[in-house]
Amino acid sequence: MSSNFPLTQSQLDNLIQDFPTPFYLYDEQAIRDNMKRFTKAFSIFPKFREHFAVKACPNPYILKILADEGCGADCSSLPELMLSHLAGITNEKVIFTSNETPASEYKFAYEHGNIINLDDITHIDFLKKALGGEFPETICFRYNPGSEKQGCNSIIGKPEEAKYGLTRAQIIEAYAKCRDLGVKHFGLHTMVASNELNPNFFVDTAKLVFELAAEIKEKTGVQIEFVDLGGGLGIPYKPDQKAVDYDEVAKGIRSEYDRVVVPAGLDPLAIYWECGRPITGPYGWLVTTAIHQKHIYREYIAVDSCMADLMRPGMYGSYHEVTVSGKENAPKTEVYDVVGSLCENCDKFAVQRSLPKIDIGDHVIIHDAGAHGRAMGFNYNGKLRCGEILMRPNGSFKEIRRRETVDDLFATLDLGGVKDFK
Amino acid sequence: MSSNFPLTQSQLDNLIQDFPTPFYLYDEQAIRDNMKRFTKAFSIFPKFREHFAVKACPNPYILKILADEGCGADCSSLPELMLSHLAGITNEKVIFTSNETPASEYKFAYEHGNIINLDDITHIDFLKKALGGEFPETICFRYNPGSEKQGCNSIIGKPEEAKYGLTRAQIIEAYAKCRDLGVKHFGLHTMVASNELNPNFFVDTAKLVFELAAEIKEKTGVQIEFVDLGGGLGIPYKPDQKAVDYDEVAKGIRSEYDRVVVPAGLDPLAIYWECGRPITGPYGWLVTTAIHQKHIYREYIAVDSCMADLMRPGMYGSYHEVTVSGKENAPKTEVYDVVGSLCENCDKFAVQRSLPKIDIGDHVIIHDAGAHGRAMGFNYNGKLRCGEILMRPNGSFKEIRRRETVDDLFATLDLGGVKDFK
Repeated sequence: MSSNFPLTQSQLDNLIQDFPTPFYLYDEQAIRDNMKRFTKAFSIFPKFREHFAVKACPNPYILKILADEGCGADCSSLPELMLSHLAGITNEKVIFTSNETPASEYKFAYEHGNIINLDDITHIDFLKKALGGEFPETICFRYNPGSEKQGCNSIIGKPEEAKYGLTRAQIIEAYAKCRDLGVKHFGLHTMVASNELNPNFFVDTAKLVFELAAEIKEKTGVQIEFVDLGGGLGIPYKPDQKAVDYDEVAKGIRSEYDRVVVPAGLDPLAIYWECGRPITGPYGWLVTTAIHQKHIYREYIAVDSCMADLMRPGMYGSYHEVTVSGKENAPKTEVYDVVGSLCENCDKFAVQRSLPKIDIGDHVIIHDAGAHGRAMGFNYNGKLRCGEILMRPNGSFKEIRRRETVDDLFATLDLGGVKDFK
Repeated sequence: MSSNFPLTQSQLDNLIQDFPTPFYLYDEQAIRDNMKRFTKAFSIFPKFREHFAVKACPNPYILKILADEGCGADCSSLPELMLSHLAGITNEKVIFTSNETPASEYKFAYEHGNIINLDDITHIDFLKKALGGEFPETICFRYNPGSEKQGCNSIIGKPEEAKYGLTRAQIIEAYAKCRDLGVKHFGLHTMVASNELNPNFFVDTAKLVFELAAEIKEKTGVQIEFVDLGGGLGIPYKPDQKAVDYDEVAKGIRSEYDRVVVPAGLDPLAIYWECGRPITGPYGWLVTTAIHQKHIYREYIAVDSCMADLMRPGMYGSYHEVTVSGKENAPKTEVYDVVGSLCENCDKFAVQRSLPKIDIGDHVIIHDAGAHGRAMGFNYNGKLRCGEILMRPNGSFKEIRRRETVDDLFATLDLGGVKDFK
C-alpha cells in the first residue's frame, strides 16, 4: 500500500502551506472507486448492501460520500446514529449493532426507523420495556457461534470468550419469541473476524449463517430476509500481504447461497455487510512532519503527531507502512524508530524500520490510516487530536474536521470555578 | 484496595440521585492524607518536592488540592502547562518533562519560568533557536541508562529500547555545553519504571542518578542542584499486592544520599519526584451501574460505562478491583466478565472474576481508577466520556468535570456544511 499516496512532494508541500501537519488526508475518488468495486462484486446477489461501520471513520462527509455510493450505516452508539442521520442515511439503511445498550439509544433507533440488531436474548424484553410496550416490525439478532467457529486473530479472540451475541439455542428461541410478538421482518447477524485477509474465512462464515437461517426457518417458521455478515475484511497493512479479492469472496458466498439458501426457500435473501476497514482504511493517511532526530541506543525520528492521533501501533503493536514524501524511491539506508511525542514508550509509529534517510522537515506519511485512525484518538498527556482533510475528485481540498483546540480539551472543565476553589 | 471506597450504599444512592452513573469519584481527604504521608517520608532530605504528573489526573481541582499540599506539577504538553498555571502552580514548581517537543511548547514553558527538562542533546540547539537565541538559567536533562538499568515491566520496557533521554556520554557533553552557554542551575532526571512496587528499585535508581551527578561534577564542574527521580511508584491493583512503603523508599534513598551525594559535595541536593499513580490512583473510582446480564458461553454483567472511560483493562489487560455497592461482604458465588458497551471484545473491566451475585441496577465500583483513568479516555464508537466528582472533606460533593455531550463530540465537525456537501 506504499504506492497509493495521491500527492507528489510539491502538491503536498502546497497543501501544508494551508493546513499545517499533522492531519489525516482522505482520497475521495479512491474511496468511491473502491466502493464501486465492492458493490460490483456483490451485485451477483439479488439484494446487497454495505452498511459502513461508522466507528471506522465517523466523519459525516465520508458518510455522505459512501451514501452516494449506495451505502447504509452500521452504528454502535447514539452519536453514531445521529451522525448517520446528519449525513442523510436514514431508516432501514441504518443498522444499530450495539451491545450492552442503554434504553435511550434503542428508543432513538426505533423512532428513526433504524434496524435494531439485538445482542442478547434478554434484550427482547429490555427493548419492549424501553419502547413503552411497542416493538419494531423488523428485528435482527447477533449470533455467537462459540466453538463452532474459531476467531481469526487476537483482536477478536475466540467467539466462546467474546461478549457478543446469542448462542444457537438462544437464537432459535429468540426468533420464536419475536414471531409471537408480531415481528414481521427478520435479519440474522454475526461478526467473528477482525482484519482477516483470507477470503475463505468469509465464505465459511456465510455458510454458517445461511445454514442457521435455514434451521431457524425449519424450527420456527421465521423467514430470515437479510443476513448481515458483519465486517472483519482486512487490509494489507504489511507490504507482503495481499488485499482481499472482493470477487473471490462474493463468488464463494454465492456458491454457498445457491447450495443452502435457494433450496431452503430463503431466496431472495439480502446480503448485508458492515465493513469499515477495507472501505476507507487504505485511502486515508496520517501526514506528519519530522521535527526531531535523536541518536541514542537506537536512531529515532520524531514527528509532530503521536498515538493521540493514531492509536493502533501503540495499542495493538500494529504495523503501518511509512513513507517519506519525495523519497518514495530513495534507498532504505537507515533503520529508525519513528516516534510520537507521547510519554508512553509504545508511542512508536514504526519500530526498527528500514527507511530512507529522513531529515528534519521531511513529511512522513503513515499509511492505511483511513479506518480506526482519527476515530480512536485520545487526549492523554493533554494532546489535541488532529483534523481531517478530504481530497476531492477534482484535486481540491476540503477540511472536513478541524483540529482540536485547548478550548475543546478544557470544555468539560469549570475553569472559572477553579480560581475560587479552596 | 477494595475496602477504601468511601461511601456506604445509601450514601452512594443519594449521590447518584444528583449525578447519574457513570462518573469518577475522588476522595479529597484521602488524597490529602496520602500526600501528607508522602511528604513526611521525604522530609528527611534537606529539600524535597513532588511534582504531580498531570497526565495521571489532569483536572485543575485535583491539581489545586495537591498544590495546597505543597506539590508542583510535571507536565508533558502545552495544555498540561496551561492547566497547571490555571491551578496556581507556577514558575519552577512546574517541570516540563516532554519528549519530541514542538518549539511553541518550549517557548511557553520558558516564558512562564518553568523548568525545562530536555530529552535529547540535540534539543539544546533546538531550544536556543525556539527561544530566539535566549536560553534558560535553569536546565535539566533526562538520562537514559540503557543496559545499565533494566526496566521493570512491559509497560516501560528496556531502557535501551526506550525513546527517552540521553546516553551517559551525551549527558556529560550536554551539561558542559550548557555550562558554556551560561546556564546557572542544573537538574538531572531519569524515569525507568512504571507501576513498580519494589522499594529497592527506586533506591537503585537514586543510586544511579546520584553517582551520575557526582561524575558530572567531576568531569564538567557542573553542580547538579536537584535530581528528579521520575515517577513509576506503583499501586497494589491486585488484592495480593502491597503498597510501596514511602518511608522505606525515602530511607533507602537517604542512605545512598549520605554515601554518594554528601561526599561528592552536592549536599544540599533537592530530591524531586514526578509521581502520578500513587498520589491519586487509589483514591479515585469509576462508579457504574449494571444494566444488562447475559448468559452465553460465560456469564456477563454489562455496566453503563466502557473502555472509553477507563482504558487500562482493555489496553494493557490491567487488573482493577471490582466491588458492588452494598455487597462488599457478600459471598463471591458467581464468576463474571464485567463488560462495557464498546464494540471491542477487550472492553472488559474484569474477566472471569469471582464476585457476589450482581443484579440489574446494582452499582459496580471499579477501584484504583484515580490515575490514568479519565485521562486516557477516548471517543471510539462515538462514546461520550464521563464526568468527575470530588468528595470534599466535609462530605459534600462537587462536580469537577461535567460529562461530555454530543455537541462536544461534534465540536470539530462542520455540521452545517454537510447538508450542502455534494
